[in-house]
Amino acid sequence: MILRMSTLFLRTLRDDPVDAEVPSHKLLVRAGYVRRAAPGIYSWLPLGYTVLRNVEKIVREEMDAIGAQEVHFPALLPREPYEATNRWEEYGDNIFRLQDRKGGDYLLGPTHEEMFTLLVKDLYSSYKDLPLSLYQIQTKYRDEARPRAGILRGREFVMKDSYSFDVSDEAFMKSYLAHRGAYIKIFDRLGLEYVIVKATSGAMGGSASEEFLVTAVNGEDTYVRSPGGYAANVEAVTTPVPPPVAYDDVPAAHAEDTPDTPTIETLVDHLNAHFPRDDRRWQAGDTLKNVLVVVRHPDGSREPLAIGLPGDREVDEKRLQAQVEPAVVEPFTEADFAAHPALVRGYIGPGVLGEKNPSGIRYLVDPRVVEGTRWVTGADEPGRHVIDLVAGRDFTPDGTIEAAEVRAGDPAPDGSGPLETARGIEMGHIFQLGRTYAEALGLQVLDENGKLVPVTMGSYGVGVSRAVAAIVENSHDDAGIIWPREVAPADVHLVATGKDDAVFEAADRLAGELDAAGVRVLYDDRRGVSPGVKFKDSELIGVPTIVVVGRGLADGVVEVKDRTTGERENVAVADAASHLARLVVP
Amino acid sequence: MILRMSTLFLRTLRDDPVDAEVPSHKLLVRAGYVRRAAPGIYSWLPLGYTVLRNVEKIVREEMDAIGAQEVHFPALLPREPYEATNRWEEYGDNIFRLQDRKGGDYLLGPTHEEMFTLLVKDLYSSYKDLPLSLYQIQTKYRDEARPRAGILRGREFVMKDSYSFDVSDEAFMKSYLAHRGAYIKIFDRLGLEYVIVKATSGAMGGSASEEFLVTAVNGEDTYVRSPGGYAANVEAVTTPVPPPVAYDDVPAAHAEDTPDTPTIETLVDHLNAHFPRDDRRWQAGDTLKNVLVVVRHPDGSREPLAIGLPGDREVDEKRLQAQVEPAVVEPFTEADFAAHPALVRGYIGPGVLGEKNPSGIRYLVDPRVVEGTRWVTGADEPGRHVIDLVAGRDFTPDGTIEAAEVRAGDPAPDGSGPLETARGIEMGHIFQLGRTYAEALGLQVLDENGKLVPVTMGSYGVGVSRAVAAIVENSHDDAGIIWPREVAPADVHLVATGKDDAVFEAADRLAGELDAAGVRVLYDDRRGVSPGVKFKDSELIGVPTIVVVGRGLADGVVEVKDRTTGERENVAVADAASHLARLVVP
Repeated sequence: MILRMSTLFLRTLRDDPVDAEVPSHKLLVRAGYVRRAAPGIYSWLPLGYTVLRNVEKIVREEMDAIGAQEVHFPALLPREPYEATNRWEEYGDNIFRLQDRKGGDYLLGPTHEEMFTLLVKDLYSSYKDLPLSLYQIQTKYRDEARPRAGILRGREFVMKDSYSFDVSDEAFMKSYLAHRGAYIKIFDRLGLEYVIVKATSGAMGGSASEEFLVTAVNGEDTYVRSPGGYAANVEAVTTPVPPPVAYDDVPAAHAEDTPDTPTIETLVDHLNAHFPRDDRRWQAGDTLKNVLVVVRHPDGSREPLAIGLPGDREVDEKRLQAQVEPAVVEPFTEADFAAHPALVRGYIGPGVLGEKNPSGIRYLVDPRVVEGTRWVTGADEPGRHVIDLVAGRDFTPDGTIEAAEVRAGDPAPDGSGPLETARGIEMGHIFQLGRTYAEALGLQVLDENGKLVPVTMGSYGVGVSRAVAAIVENSHDDAGIIWPREVAPADVHLVATGKDDAVFEAADRLAGELDAAGVRVLYDDRRGVSPGVKFKDSELIGVPTIVVVGRGLADGVVEVKDRTTGERENVAVADAASHLARLVVP
Repeated sequence: MILRMSTLFLRTLRDDPVDAEVPSHKLLVRAGYVRRAAPGIYSWLPLGYTVLRNVEKIVREEMDAIGAQEVHFPALLPREPYEATNRWEEYGDNIFRLQDRKGGDYLLGPTHEEMFTLLVKDLYSSYKDLPLSLYQIQTKYRDEARPRAGILRGREFVMKDSYSFDVSDEAFMKSYLAHRGAYIKIFDRLGLEYVIVKATSGAMGGSASEEFLVTAVNGEDTYVRSPGGYAANVEAVTTPVPPPVAYDDVPAAHAEDTPDTPTIETLVDHLNAHFPRDDRRWQAGDTLKNVLVVVRHPDGSREPLAIGLPGDREVDEKRLQAQVEPAVVEPFTEADFAAHPALVRGYIGPGVLGEKNPSGIRYLVDPRVVEGTRWVTGADEPGRHVIDLVAGRDFTPDGTIEAAEVRAGDPAPDGSGPLETARGIEMGHIFQLGRTYAEALGLQVLDENGKLVPVTMGSYGVGVSRAVAAIVENSHDDAGIIWPREVAPADVHLVATGKDDAVFEAADRLAGELDAAGVRVLYDDRRGVSPGVKFKDSELIGVPTIVVVGRGLADGVVEVKDRTTGERENVAVADAASHLARLVVP
């Protein structure tokens, strides 16, 4: 393959696009790989489409290798199956909906659990038909509230999604691990630096899942890791539950005047000023903060919820959201306060919270609030707090919830040391779906005993177009992109410099020899373009090996440069083709 | 490649789908290639997707061979560019429109002229950048009024569309002919029987175009051909204009009572009964029929139109529609009659038609109505007709129009003999777009003299998913599909029959040898399935070469069957792999 830049549909740009913030967005547009067509919607230019297809090829090969079979579903999908699983509503504004000329409701598929489930139901009926894994590489749609970062989070994107179908949880684990193994191979071949983290299942309704996150400072996902190798999505981190604390010598709870202390900070100051302790000063962590929210369920009903957590921690909205899914979290409004007169704003305490208490509002606490822990908290009267309130003695919450923020230094749940936070780009997702979809859509097979059982499913995704951006986030420098060889748009960027016909003749010959040797060549054969511009373009475009045919030709050499290391060497023209073929063809 | 039927996601069906009328629809569903997801929307199962990708590969190779560059646009497109070319309105109900969460208008792309034009405008500015041909292979959408015939006319389908950009009409012709040549290669490789016909440009706004029609009795398109090689879409046929006729001896026109003759048939009977002629009987072709319609223009305005044509011909709606595009033809309503009191229903004649006459309605006649032709037509009074009315002497229409039906036996416009009609499936389309899009969207380049000129464009389409169905329409028998080798899902369908382990061992070995030789094998390794069922499946699925390992094994032979000819031969097991490899690998 020889791509000639004299005719290639490509114009590199000097300036970053105005709306671009992350390197992959800037570089992919400047180097002529993609171009914006609408917010979050991009066109792929020839070099970009080549890279995208290279990524697809890797994904396809590894999926085929585990026996997954490729199919292709429509992107335009009827409403009914998504009704059956409640996702038509649950997706809210996040999907594109439309009607056909007859008024029938359709959506643009964000993911295809329903369709795969129905298709397997249509064709299969026995445990003998299983296991089965199906996949597709397809254009998907999501109406992101804030499409940004170019193709890193677009509204139209390419995804590989696959689904496994098994007769039992044990059989499912084999399918799950096969996908996990395939994903490791895919991300290794893509040259990505990544981490596999425990994840919640999100809107997918499953019970366990892992994410493949590409480590990137510009990543949208925060995850935590420990020195001992624990890694998890923040939503999935569980809090180690401390043992109960003895409270025999804790005095009885006593309410005190604490005027003008509606915040944790003012309260702590007040405590230290008016109720000093001998052993240590009061801290935010000694207080119990009660936060009110409303949970809106898929059926539209609104349920108030109180969350009690140590005063030194905030509620993490994403973690809370993950706990209540598929319901969504909404603010507790003025109207809600009006409906619950027992609540005294700024001074709310467990005295009124809980299903058996005056407010009747369900009261869940952070797992650290174990029996015997001792708190300062609201006394449910303006300007007053309770001191020495002991969990289990003076109040009993309705349960616990993982809604508090995770902080650097928190212990990993598996005891592998203190957590630190890092950022990543979600590139892959492997989900245990369980029997949710099979039950909602009636996918059952006869088991070995002739009994109908629902099928156990898994769902697995790779962001194919996103991978192109993630690779660039992982692999670039100030001058441009540095492609890993297997996804690069070419193996060699051959640059002919100067005005000398002999240079172009030698470069033409070399291009032909390389092509014959199976080397993919991007050939800068433009006349009248300065060497400086050509060099800059080659660094920006990011083909891993750059070969310059120019002045050295007088000495019978061409320059071979490694885009990654910047190392250069001169190679005799006569040896160049075979030298490069050895270098680049695996 | 070995596809094992024991694990392949495939269930062949005994019965035709209830909604299927044409062979490709029946067979592709029954043989497990596609499956309906919604009206006109299909999922591709593993074998089907393999065939689709084989077709894509052929298209891609031939497009690359003429130097066209592959890109990939979004399918979800913003409204604005389609506003600029009026197509947002012109498409009417035929496109899917939707809004995003912010209320922005989008459509699902039916074709991409606007986007390509804007992209080239974005990157290119000089005649030196041209010629340029870009293409994509992409999922497209059309909200068909009557989706039918399976993937032959779906609402979501795969198309290859390409666009050429040139600085002059001469340069354009080269691009056009290059595409034409590539299409001939593509359709030849797809094993299709096809004809290239002259076509009107339809909604595309061009001035010349050709269609590649696959000849098929179930085709939706009617075309005509002559013994001398003329072929055209019915919409594109032009009527040879006869020379003027001398009318010196024609008596003056005379109105006669013709009571109760509102139809041509009743009129002819009345004429023969009451106005007999010496030389020959009156015929429908002696009468001039005047048909009224309304033309609705893109701006919403309604213009009445009268069409005069010989009484033995009907108006062909498609031909009429092609003449008035982008306007659409609507019925002439009661209200329209009420607004034009000069019109006497059933007895309308040229006396009131035409822009200068009492009705003021534009009056266009069939090209056969030349000067001197002599007609019987309405006298604009109830129950009366005019006889001996001579065109050019007694009335003058406002112009001519190609709206009459084309009939077998009509002369070809190029004098190559009488036309006959045939049916075909539109598979490819090559259009001269001219400067319409460039002008609407401002795509100009500097020419050699430094002058800004609009770019001349061409647009070229191949129905990729439709090709899969068209191939089946062309190539099947009662038992099933017969794939041309290059698109077949496998080269060899290897069938192991019986219960004997030795058979399966020999078949396993042969499958491995074939795979090693680069032969793609679909291997029926199912146990406990009768030979009859396996043979039926192999005929239905349609792989071109079927190899049976069974009883013959005792004699050291396997049976090799040609799916097309039905010919069988026994081949020694030991030679089978090399024999087959020679047969199937080009």
